Amino acid sequence: MKDPVYKLIELTGTSTLSVEDAVNRAVKRAHKTVKNLRWFQVVDTRGAIAKGRVEHWQVTIKVGFSVDG
Amino acid sequence: MKDPVYKLIELTGTSTLSVEDAVNRAVKRAHKTVKNLRWFQVVDTRGAIAKGRVEHWQVTIKVGFSVDG
Amino acid sequence: MKDPVYKLIELTGTSTLSVEDAVNRAVKRAHKTVKNLRWFQVVDTRGAIAKGRVEHWQVTIKVGFSVDG
Amino acid sequence: MKDPVYKLIELTGTSTLSVEDAVNRAVKRAHKTVKNLRWFQVVDTRGAIAKGRVEHWQVTIKVGFSVDG
Amino acid sequence: MKDPVYKLIELTGTSTLSVEDAVNRAVKRAHKTVKNLRWFQVVDTRGAIAKGRVEHWQVTIKVGFSVDG
Amino acid sequence: MKDPVYKLIELTGTSTLSVEDAVNRAVKRAHKTVKNLRWFQVVDTRGAIAKGRVEHWQVTIKVGFSVDG
Amino acid sequence: MKDPVYKLIELTGTSTLSVEDAVNRAVKRAHKTVKNLRWFQVVDTRGAIAKGRVEHWQVTIKVGFSVDG
Amino acid sequence: MKDPVYKLIELTGTSTLSVEDAVNRAVKRAHKTVKNLRWFQVVDTRGAIAKGRVEHWQVTIKVGFSVDG
Amino acid sequence: MKDPVYKLIELTGTSTLSVEDAVNRAVKRAHKTVKNLRWFQVVDTRGAIAKGRVEHWQVTIKVGFSVDG
Amino acid sequence: MKDPVYKLIELTGTSTLSVEDAVNRAVKRAHKTVKNLRWFQVVDTRGAIAKGRVEHWQVTIKVGFSVDG
Amino acid sequence: MKDPVYKLIELTGTSTLSVEDAVNRAVKRAHKTVKNLRWFQVVDTRGAIAKGRVEHWQVTIKVGFSVDG
Amino acid sequence: MKDPVYKLIELTGTSTLSVEDAVNRAVKRAHKTVKNLRWFQVVDTRGAIAKGRVEHWQVTIKVGFSVDG
Repeated sequence: MKDPVYKLIELTGTSTLSVEDAVNRAVKRAHKTVKNLRWFQVVDTRGAIAKGRVEHWQVTIKVGFSVDG
Repeated sequence: MKDPVYKLIELTGTSTLSVEDAVNRAVKRAHKTVKNLRWFQVVDTRGAIAKGRVEHWQVTIKVGFSVDG
Repeated sequence: MKDPVYKLIELTGTSTLSVEDAVNRAVKRAHKTVKNLRWFQVVDTRGAIAKGRVEHWQVTIKVGFSVDG
Repeated sequence: MKDPVYKLIELTGTSTLSVEDAVNRAVKRAHKTVKNLRWFQVVDTRGAIAKGRVEHWQVTIKVGFSVDG
Repeated sequence: MKDPVYKLIELTGTSTLSVEDAVNRAVKRAHKTVKNLRWFQVVDTRGAIAKGRVEHWQVTIKVGFSVDG
Repeated sequence: MKDPVYKLIELTGTSTLSVEDAVNRAVKRAHKTVKNLRWFQVVDTRGAIAKGRVEHWQVTIKVGFSVDG
Repeated sequence: MKDPVYKLIELTGTSTLSVEDAVNRAVKRAHKTVKNLRWFQVVDTRGAIAKGRVEHWQVTIKVGFSVDG
Repeated sequence: MKDPVYKLIELTGTSTLSVEDAVNRAVKRAHKTVKNLRWFQVVDTRGAIAKGRVEHWQVTIKVGFSVDG
Repeated sequence: MKDPVYKLIELTGTSTLSVEDAVNRAVKRAHKTVKNLRWFQVVDTRGAIAKGRVEHWQVTIKVGFSVDG
Repeated sequence: MKDPVYKLIELTGTSTLSVEDAVNRAVKRAHKTVKNLRWFQVVDTRGAIAKGRVEHWQVTIKVGFSVDG
Repeated sequence: MKDPVYKLIELTGTSTLSVEDAVNRAVKRAHKTVKNLRWFQVVDTRGAIAKGRVEHWQVTIKVGFSVDG
Repeated sequence: MKDPVYKLIELTGTSTLSVEDAVNRAVKRAHKTVKNLRWFQVVDTRGAIAKGRVEHWQVTIKVGFSVDG
């Protein structure tokens, strides 16, 4: 397909470990329903705090994937 | 589910009454097809004018909901 | 007119009541001198405080109207 | 005081009713500890959703007040 | 429908020709699955370069369409 | 005039053809009433869609022109 | 007037001396045609360079003034 | 408390290890004086370089905590 | 202290003279209560106009200072 | 090279014809001194006006190219 | 040198491991040709996805270094 | 050259005196190696504080200059 069209969806991944793990969980989840994921962009990094420590990293990403022409 | 993943969708609600009503209509509409809506963020507030008065409030929001791991 | 041109002007409406009323006052005022107002976009929401309460809502909008080709 | 200095603090007010009520609650709360509040600016409007309806409006504002020279 | 609700989806159209063609390809593709598209907004314009020339224009747009009340 | 002052006005040009044509129509229209236009900046690119095709390009620009000292 | 409406216009003042002088020249020029100017906001600071030195400061401001109810 | 008010403070955490560690140090420090921290948002990620390597990660966050009604 | 934590506060300094003087007044005022100020960032430059002249420069800055580990 | 590093440079291309031509001229010029250009992003679209018509399109882009590990 | 001048260059580092590693690779590469690097700022975090997993982290930074007076 | 191409570089000038002086020092330094500088844009204004006073103004600018066709 010479001139592909991509769709972007927005997801928030969460993790108790790290920014990277939060992104990976979101990507892995998207992959369950969409097979041809190509790229992501981080749009927001937040988190929940409990007892004075980061409890969850919440990283919002846009994920792009090609759709058939 | 310890590390949930959320999806965000973008909607524009409209109302002849108020910003709050426009948001509520968008949320109510989303709830018809997605049951576990959690939060929203206002991203744009616009409107149509007719005869020198605000005819419609048009409020664009992102709505987040959890997806199964 | 097939390809209209629109002009945008920026106004700050104020109100002791609400965001919506502040926008409506700005639109009503613009309508006094410009008849074909079409749409508005909220660009800033501020306000004055007196005695620990919101005294005035100050909502800045852009208002668009068509100009003759 | 000819050249006053102001301090800005950031607050998130919440309300089950409206954007305006959320702002007013934040301002009222700030007034408990700071007496000379002057103005506010809305920086974010979000909310929580429960059972397909807006449960809480969450409006983040900056509030400015003069500090003694 | 007096107070319609709109959904916005984000797409990246690509073209070897121009910005306009890239947008048109994204709109045409969206039209395959969604019939009542109403408007778009350009959110990013990028491209791939090969041999010192623009190989592909990549234009990301948001496309809005009405959903049933 | 050694230290000129410029005024900026905001216009939305529309065109069925292209981004460039939309800008040109806005500039041409402004020139009817203001003779010394100097520069423009694109601030927003949107459009209307009908029957799955771009019906109108809507390009919002700021146009600067010198005013007499 | 209890709930005034303000209009904002955008101007670029230029000066060989300083940012402040560029703003002052823009304000002074606006005052020629509009008497009740109230406030300004700096939106852009640029300049022209000649022979390795700043030749002109170009400061773009928005100027607000009240319009009759 | 049905309609809580939150305060946000801005902190820059630093770490020789990682973005996450820098955030955690800022959160831990805030916890010394404020007990009910709830969430954070990353607003800037910078760092110092020495001898061609990242010496310190400097991550600026906003931290929100509830204040008594 | 190897991994310091900094706090940022937001202030608006005002001056009849210049941007620099407004910043200096805000910094001087902050120094009365916080001794280890390190840096500032300008976040907004505004001003009040009276009789067609800039009456006050109002410069909002964020000021960073280290807090004990 | 498994983990390439890219450099981005910023260029403004100009053209009497179109946005696309302005970008192409900037890319072609960069290609004279840098051979492995990969992508570009449009960051600003402006132009000069003469006699009520767009005289030059001025499109500022960032161009990325890989540098040897 | 009392009043140093710094130059900022923009780089995208990539890594299969983490955000931090991507930044470090970009800094290390810049250090090959520029010795006095001082600081960096993260301006964009993206990545490539393959087989439902993050394949590469792509972190764009600005790197500042002093240049001789 | 009818359709020139410009390059933009980013510099941070510093000064103990003023914003203007910091910009001038950056421009003067750039002029040592690039002769045809044309314009600049201020992108960030920061500073270092020592003993409760502004010690250095740090103004980041983009400087544009034409490159041969």
